[in-house]
Amino acid sequence: MVKIATSGNKGKGVRSDCFVTLELTDQGGIQLELESKVAVMYGASIRQEVHDILDFFDIKNAKVKLEDSGAISLVIAARLEAAIRKLTGSAKSRPPALLTQNLYTTTKDRNRFSRLYLPGNTPSLMINAGIHKPDGIILDLEDAVAPDKKDEARFLVRNALCGIDFYGAERMVRINQGERGLDDLEYIIPYNVNLILLPKCESADQIHAVNKRIDEILNRQPSTVNRQSSIWIMPIIESALGVINAYAIASAADNIVAMAIGLEDYTADLGTRRTAEGTESFFARSMVVNAARAAGIQPIDSVFSDVADMEGLRQNVLRSKALGFDGMGCIHPRQIMVIHDTFAPSPEEIEKAKKIVFAFHKAKEQGLGVVALGTKMIDPPVVKRALNTIHLAIKMNKLAENWRETYE
Amino acid sequence: MVKIATSGNKGKGVRSDCFVTLELTDQGGIQLELESKVAVMYGASIRQEVHDILDFFDIKNAKVKLEDSGAISLVIAARLEAAIRKLTGSAKSRPPALLTQNLYTTTKDRNRFSRLYLPGNTPSLMINAGIHKPDGIILDLEDAVAPDKKDEARFLVRNALCGIDFYGAERMVRINQGERGLDDLEYIIPYNVNLILLPKCESADQIHAVNKRIDEILNRQPSTVNRQSSIWIMPIIESALGVINAYAIASAADNIVAMAIGLEDYTADLGTRRTAEGTESFFARSMVVNAARAAGIQPIDSVFSDVADMEGLRQNVLRSKALGFDGMGCIHPRQIMVIHDTFAPSPEEIEKAKKIVFAFHKAKEQGLGVVALGTKMIDPPVVKRALNTIHLAIKMNKLAENWRETYE
Amino acid sequence: MVKIATSGNKGKGVRSDCFVTLELTDQGGIQLELESKVAVMYGASIRQEVHDILDFFDIKNAKVKLEDSGAISLVIAARLEAAIRKLTGSAKSRPPALLTQNLYTTTKDRNRFSRLYLPGNTPSLMINAGIHKPDGIILDLEDAVAPDKKDEARFLVRNALCGIDFYGAERMVRINQGERGLDDLEYIIPYNVNLILLPKCESADQIHAVNKRIDEILNRQPSTVNRQSSIWIMPIIESALGVINAYAIASAADNIVAMAIGLEDYTADLGTRRTAEGTESFFARSMVVNAARAAGIQPIDSVFSDVADMEGLRQNVLRSKALGFDGMGCIHPRQIMVIHDTFAPSPEEIEKAKKIVFAFHKAKEQGLGVVALGTKMIDPPVVKRALNTIHLAIKMNKLAENWRETYE
Repeated sequence: MVKIATSGNKGKGVRSDCFVTLELTDQGGIQLELESKVAVMYGASIRQEVHDILDFFDIKNAKVKLEDSGAISLVIAARLEAAIRKLTGSAKSRPPALLTQNLYTTTKDRNRFSRLYLPGNTPSLMINAGIHKPDGIILDLEDAVAPDKKDEARFLVRNALCGIDFYGAERMVRINQGERGLDDLEYIIPYNVNLILLPKCESADQIHAVNKRIDEILNRQPSTVNRQSSIWIMPIIESALGVINAYAIASAADNIVAMAIGLEDYTADLGTRRTAEGTESFFARSMVVNAARAAGIQPIDSVFSDVADMEGLRQNVLRSKALGFDGMGCIHPRQIMVIHDTFAPSPEEIEKAKKIVFAFHKAKEQGLGVVALGTKMIDPPVVKRALNTIHLAIKMNKLAENWRETYE
Repeated sequence: MVKIATSGNKGKGVRSDCFVTLELTDQGGIQLELESKVAVMYGASIRQEVHDILDFFDIKNAKVKLEDSGAISLVIAARLEAAIRKLTGSAKSRPPALLTQNLYTTTKDRNRFSRLYLPGNTPSLMINAGIHKPDGIILDLEDAVAPDKKDEARFLVRNALCGIDFYGAERMVRINQGERGLDDLEYIIPYNVNLILLPKCESADQIHAVNKRIDEILNRQPSTVNRQSSIWIMPIIESALGVINAYAIASAADNIVAMAIGLEDYTADLGTRRTAEGTESFFARSMVVNAARAAGIQPIDSVFSDVADMEGLRQNVLRSKALGFDGMGCIHPRQIMVIHDTFAPSPEEIEKAKKIVFAFHKAKEQGLGVVALGTKMIDPPVVKRALNTIHLAIKMNKLAENWRETYE
Repeated sequence: MVKIATSGNKGKGVRSDCFVTLELTDQGGIQLELESKVAVMYGASIRQEVHDILDFFDIKNAKVKLEDSGAISLVIAARLEAAIRKLTGSAKSRPPALLTQNLYTTTKDRNRFSRLYLPGNTPSLMINAGIHKPDGIILDLEDAVAPDKKDEARFLVRNALCGIDFYGAERMVRINQGERGLDDLEYIIPYNVNLILLPKCESADQIHAVNKRIDEILNRQPSTVNRQSSIWIMPIIESALGVINAYAIASAADNIVAMAIGLEDYTADLGTRRTAEGTESFFARSMVVNAARAAGIQPIDSVFSDVADMEGLRQNVLRSKALGFDGMGCIHPRQIMVIHDTFAPSPEEIEKAKKIVFAFHKAKEQGLGVVALGTKMIDPPVVKRALNTIHLAIKMNKLAENWRETYE
């Protein structure tokens, strides 16, 4: 019985990856064939790592072919472990060490203007993703991974969570739908993922199932794993049923921090086409915004798919912002800056807000109950909105925290 | 005590109908007065039929006046039975034989682009309705029938279900609201009606009441009546309360196949006017589309009432289709073709879908998990939408079933 | 221990008000200092009233300074009682007599096109408010009153309800949110308030809490207080959660007669800006209209805040009416006439409705079931809408009640 498994990618256009072919044999020890342009410099250490991993899984006899296209160590380890576990069914796990700089947590109300989608089986896009400074980075195990690659992607995503520095971006993973999605959690929960994206969410029960599995996994961890901080959930509404149940979903659990809408799937479910003006999804986007705000969480808009059209993206963000959205997905790093700049308070908004907030503080110091600009009384909701604008402007470094000291 | 009843229509503009005046007498036998332009050719058979019917209801003495304007046999029978049962209160029933070509059933997901409304008491419109090939023909017992004609319309609709060939159009009846509607079911359920339209639906309970009565009626039928196939229900949302409860209604029972909106009643309930652009009903139409899709059934739009404005109708269908509707009502046969052509996939839509579906099958054959056009990966929802388009194009004979054999 | 309290307003721009400074002393009797331009004419009666009130609250020694800017008696009484009860905590209450002309009740379905907001602590605006003939006058205890003035405003609003004639306008009070709002009820329920506005309503429970307190207060009243007529409730939807729960709120109790939307607070809750075209609130306004109509109550739109822009107001009313709203708030008397004229049926609407209603009555008299104009059958919802238009035109004196007698 020949037992062969492969893992990873090779061929034209593939970078930072490797392709592993593993054949378990009955004798002959480990026979490793390495193809790599960097074999002269790194060949010895790659070989050592392969041997270490095979040894960890108690494999004494095997033929291993490793076609390398510049993979870093955690990628090689992910590819090899995926092949080994496919063949052996071993339950052992060999993640790399979790970098100490990856141990950060995120707050419930942090900015989530941009979240960058990265296919979960494409290491080249992961390595430098953090330098573009998105608010969040999504390692996607769902639609961006081909069905027959979904198993091996789990090891790559796990290893990326452990060993790649995202420079402060919120560490997100989009899991699959249904049972596969619950099993995906085993590969990410122990490795300080900050937020789970739940695709095609249609009921509160799906949230409860995810939280139940998260708790089970955390309870199985050694006490050295930090269990104090929350793992956030962002359900994605992608169907008419999800829209109908939007508020039940948004308010299903305390660790839900945002709710997104996915318009490609939604319009397909409706049996219609997605247009630029978005009439066909106006109701759905309004429902998501209202359901999210009603539950006290952030409403997040769909991605804008034409990565070349920056002005179209800007118009899209303006419409999103006007409807009440707090952020949107992005599929290319170049979209991040436009999204941040357009969601951010504009200079005019900040100037107007400064006047109101200054008057508000003055009224407070004088013990007045009413905020006035000249003779005009400012309504409480207008004051509240101005305070939010100033808060955001400070968070985004568009205003000094102590601006009032020099204001007049 | 003089006992006289009338039934049917006469006068200018009336065709294919007759007007029956029936007086029960104590003696003198049957005195039949027949006024008909076709008396020379059909007089004898008409007279025979009248005698047969009176005999069936054990009427020995009566004066009958039959003013005929070209009624076919089942119309005469319906008019006479209506008059007899009005006078006698007889519980006996004398439907014509159910044509074998009328015994067809329909599937839950069949096309319902067009459904043609026919007033339930106007035989002239029924006889040739099928030749216009609407997807469905509605015999309307509700708003299109005057209150004092609602009883006699039941007999005409029953007889039409039995004896008029609709050439494959789905056989639909719109019943009345409330208790009268439940009683309407007695006249249609045993005669292979395919689908019941439920007007002004505002709660799931109304659906349950209809289904309960349907079951009672079917259980009373002799075993020769086919009880295996489903009788479908299409609730019509025509009020603000119906809009609020749209999802509860759409998901109330498994035999609901579609949900329609009726905008004349809805805008009247809202206290506003129906406009061409439809801003006042945008929310309601969106709710109906989303509720229907969430329940896995077809959303169906309101009728377009200007039967002379074909371009206006076409624009209306384009708006309906863009919002996600799968069909609409029509009040004149001339609307049918425009509705079909505009709801159908356009040649451009079909060409685009062919490319994607071809790539999808190629990927499947090659065991690939990802569908690609050139270097561009095609998302699963886009593939799903393309498959639907192709499925529909084949169903509508706009594409050969074996198109892939010659595609390149 | 010096015990000093103040109440009321003074200074530039203050009219029809007074500012009371009250110091309780241990001896020296009542020392009253009165500053008033009308002291020569009214000084004696003002002094008498102050003494009567102090006597009512058993105050024998006090220094009272009364800076009058033209306050009528019930204002002076309100200001002094507020200061006394602040200092003494007395539970005694001294409202003026309830004018017999203020004892009217209102019907559930009366016109509510306009409701004029008046700040609850500004007497000058209250005195002549009725002469502008708004459908309702709101004495506002919530956002239009500064937090440190909310206690004293209760006495002014109570005294206004008792002693100011609103000339038939519906007598409304907007209470505060939460517990303070329930306590506000103590100051208004016994004084024939017609309608309570409930701000930032987000659940049916808030309605139940208000109704429970209303019942408690009424049960405590002497039997001479009329308890037969209903006190109506108008919840205001001002948040995303309120929008989500709109139908539950609208249908929470039988004494809810209308539901309003407040767009300043709503758009602030959504985190967006209110625009003239109102895209950001289209969903919310649609939800409020549908929820209200579904519950059989009146949907009421937000105020239009630019009091100088009459044409903008008119356009705004046209949009409100088109969406199905039955009225809106106003913040300046000059807005009332535009609102009434624009919500009212137009001459063209009335002419069209007359034709239909005339045909309807003719058909009824002739025992016909169908209404027809010439050869065109008129659908029941169109007849219903025409009847509403005529009903409204008569109510608004745009049509004589007996118009049919001379119609041809």
